[in-house]
Amino acid sequence: MADVGSKQNFDWQKLYVKATDKIMGDEDCAFRSLLTAAPPLLNCDHGDPTMFEAYWNAHKDDHVKVGYANDTLSYFVKSKEQEGCPWFVSALLDDAIRELHSFVGNAVTGDRAIVVGNGSTQLFQAALYALATRDGTSTPVVSEAPFYSAYREIIDYLQSKLFHWAGDSKTFHPKANETFIEMVTTPNNPCGTMREGLGLGDKGTIVHDLAYYWPTYVPIISSFDSDVMLFTLSKCTGHAGLRIGWAVVKNPAVAKKMAEFVALNTIGLAQDAQSRAAGLIRTVIRGYGGKRRQDHCIADDNFEISLSDPKYLLAHEIRITEALLAKKFFHWSRQVMESRWVKVRSALAGNKNFSLQNNVASATHTFSTCTFSGTSHSTYPAFIWLKCEKEGTDCQMILKRNGILGRNGALFGVSTQYARLSLLDHEPAVDLLVERLTTLEC
Amino acid sequence: MADVGSKQNFDWQKLYVKATDKIMGDEDCAFRSLLTAAPPLLNCDHGDPTMFEAYWNAHKDDHVKVGYANDTLSYFVKSKEQEGCPWFVSALLDDAIRELHSFVGNAVTGDRAIVVGNGSTQLFQAALYALATRDGTSTPVVSEAPFYSAYREIIDYLQSKLFHWAGDSKTFHPKANETFIEMVTTPNNPCGTMREGLGLGDKGTIVHDLAYYWPTYVPIISSFDSDVMLFTLSKCTGHAGLRIGWAVVKNPAVAKKMAEFVALNTIGLAQDAQSRAAGLIRTVIRGYGGKRRQDHCIADDNFEISLSDPKYLLAHEIRITEALLAKKFFHWSRQVMESRWVKVRSALAGNKNFSLQNNVASATHTFSTCTFSGTSHSTYPAFIWLKCEKEGTDCQMILKRNGILGRNGALFGVSTQYARLSLLDHEPAVDLLVERLTTLEC
Repeated sequence: MADVGSKQNFDWQKLYVKATDKIMGDEDCAFRSLLTAAPPLLNCDHGDPTMFEAYWNAHKDDHVKVGYANDTLSYFVKSKEQEGCPWFVSALLDDAIRELHSFVGNAVTGDRAIVVGNGSTQLFQAALYALATRDGTSTPVVSEAPFYSAYREIIDYLQSKLFHWAGDSKTFHPKANETFIEMVTTPNNPCGTMREGLGLGDKGTIVHDLAYYWPTYVPIISSFDSDVMLFTLSKCTGHAGLRIGWAVVKNPAVAKKMAEFVALNTIGLAQDAQSRAAGLIRTVIRGYGGKRRQDHCIADDNFEISLSDPKYLLAHEIRITEALLAKKFFHWSRQVMESRWVKVRSALAGNKNFSLQNNVASATHTFSTCTFSGTSHSTYPAFIWLKCEKEGTDCQMILKRNGILGRNGALFGVSTQYARLSLLDHEPAVDLLVERLTTLEC
Repeated sequence: MADVGSKQNFDWQKLYVKATDKIMGDEDCAFRSLLTAAPPLLNCDHGDPTMFEAYWNAHKDDHVKVGYANDTLSYFVKSKEQEGCPWFVSALLDDAIRELHSFVGNAVTGDRAIVVGNGSTQLFQAALYALATRDGTSTPVVSEAPFYSAYREIIDYLQSKLFHWAGDSKTFHPKANETFIEMVTTPNNPCGTMREGLGLGDKGTIVHDLAYYWPTYVPIISSFDSDVMLFTLSKCTGHAGLRIGWAVVKNPAVAKKMAEFVALNTIGLAQDAQSRAAGLIRTVIRGYGGKRRQDHCIADDNFEISLSDPKYLLAHEIRITEALLAKKFFHWSRQVMESRWVKVRSALAGNKNFSLQNNVASATHTFSTCTFSGTSHSTYPAFIWLKCEKEGTDCQMILKRNGILGRNGALFGVSTQYARLSLLDHEPAVDLLVERLTTLEC
């Protein structure tokens, strides 16, 4: 499920918006000076995927959508309703999503329904609505800690009698024959770990939140084929402002019930957004010219991480630029993330007071071969999951004193010694974050 | 709140979509032949506002929105958050909405917050969420029958502990000091009556659903200035596929809570849709060239309804065309609705078995002066509210036998002798409806 979080630092946000206006080419300096000026707090609380602007700014004309005044004058869109798809989902977007999953190889969509909604946040609620028992009891929803901080909030806000938040799946003991729902986020938000779910008995239904299961963040190992899989455009192409999420659903009755939720909740979703989403997805695929592997133009060989080599980061920069120019979207985004992680690990390498809890991203972790790119690499999570090693400390407070706004570990169901920091911001903001992490004091 | 309803007749819908593709100029004949071909049932169940296509087809280039691949790459939009507006509402749309209300004169917006959402359906839920007591009891929600059929369904589907549907306000007796919410739809859906609300004691909060309080449907008498007012673009400019609704809210704390709902429910709404909505609203206003009254180019004098005069409908056609060419959107839509009502009344005039319950639209009803147009006219509801006079009959079933799909009165909290029929379809579909109403048999 997508992540936006609270906007705790309004002044920074205002500054940020001003800065965003100016971020192009030589004006990066202006952006940076704005960021470093007062107020000094760097907002890494939310996972706003502005990182992707660098790619799309370079290819802004690759998908241009023209909307006339007589477009979208009906609740109804050309859908694949006759094939069992929701009446409010555009056939074009349905096709594009299936093609994308087939191209990337991260999810099976054949004979599955695709339910599109206003972001995966809405589809998460649709899944709860569809999977809750209707026997008069409230269905517990659990997730293994650290779990995505918004689950609890979204489950609770309307105080539904259909379901309730039941906390960490590790400490959850279902009653005999009790039906429950387990949210499995993989790779996990906040820590980036690949997860299987605890699957506590045969009465549990797993909903897979696969928001980050893209080559950008993780080697694609296999095509997921579970009952309910949630995705969001925000963490795929980066178009968070389109509010497009989707669910791939095996059981037609569950899909129908999820579509019922979206229809009751918002009578579907904006057709303009659907049409642009379809076009952008096709643009990503088209960039690869129909071929999955493009090793001939992108040097994506395995290599040993050797930070002592001054050419290391330069080589990265070259690869990023190559991928950008070659329009290999996922190669580009993966290289960007890898480069960011190299810098982050380097910044914290000598710091005994803090430890990176994204163990999957450590230099010693065994690489996996990505079936999408054909190359072997580690995972590069969207978030830094940081632990302050001193007992009883509040990592978020410490970060704040160091000019960084993070999200408190307590919101993810663990101790305040943990905090989450987004790595999806613009490059200058990430560089500033790295600078501040380098001098991080307890 | 907007109205879409269930799609009970899928084959018809399929046909409809095919027909919509072809509806332009001379191809109206093709459209009509499709409509009259098997399957014969004419779907008047939902209030899909395709009537407005005729206007926007003629002015399709008056607002052209170009979206580039690097647009909407952030959850955040340039908002007026610093002025207390929701962070996800575009400042452009906020401004356009205020200008529209000021131009039309149907709602006071000064010193009010505007909360935009995915259609007014979402804002209806946001209002319930914001106004429900948080004292551990469930807040009753009532509305005077006949009430909009979707209220009950939307209140109930998530089984929230915060609020519940308590039925017809006429038979509702709040307990001592019990807080409750009254939905007042004015003009009312289904019947078009202007309503004040029962206001049962000082513990009731009224939410005004003003979806149809536009010059299209009713003379604008005064600028509404109540606590929470809901509007939707679907029944204003007709762009139902954009999923744009808004609430004008007096109490900043209520507005904040409503915005919280939209943020938790869907993390705001599509920025593309907001931007197009703002542009379309401005296009409507621009059509009037800054002036409210344009009597010099539109002959909009009062006249006695005289159906015996064969020139009557022709005069209507001329006025409709004049308004269309002069880009007076609301003059055009009002004339279209008036013309439709003339035909409907004529079709049912001699029929003793059925009666139009939209008494406000009767020929004998006193006209009101519309402060927007400066002329005096009756109301022209979006729906026909039909009663079969024979005791114990099912009007919907009778209509079905006559080739018309309507919505059963029981869904609106009254007897099955009533049924609702949409009058917002394309012109050829309405003509066919009128034809079938002319021969309507019990």
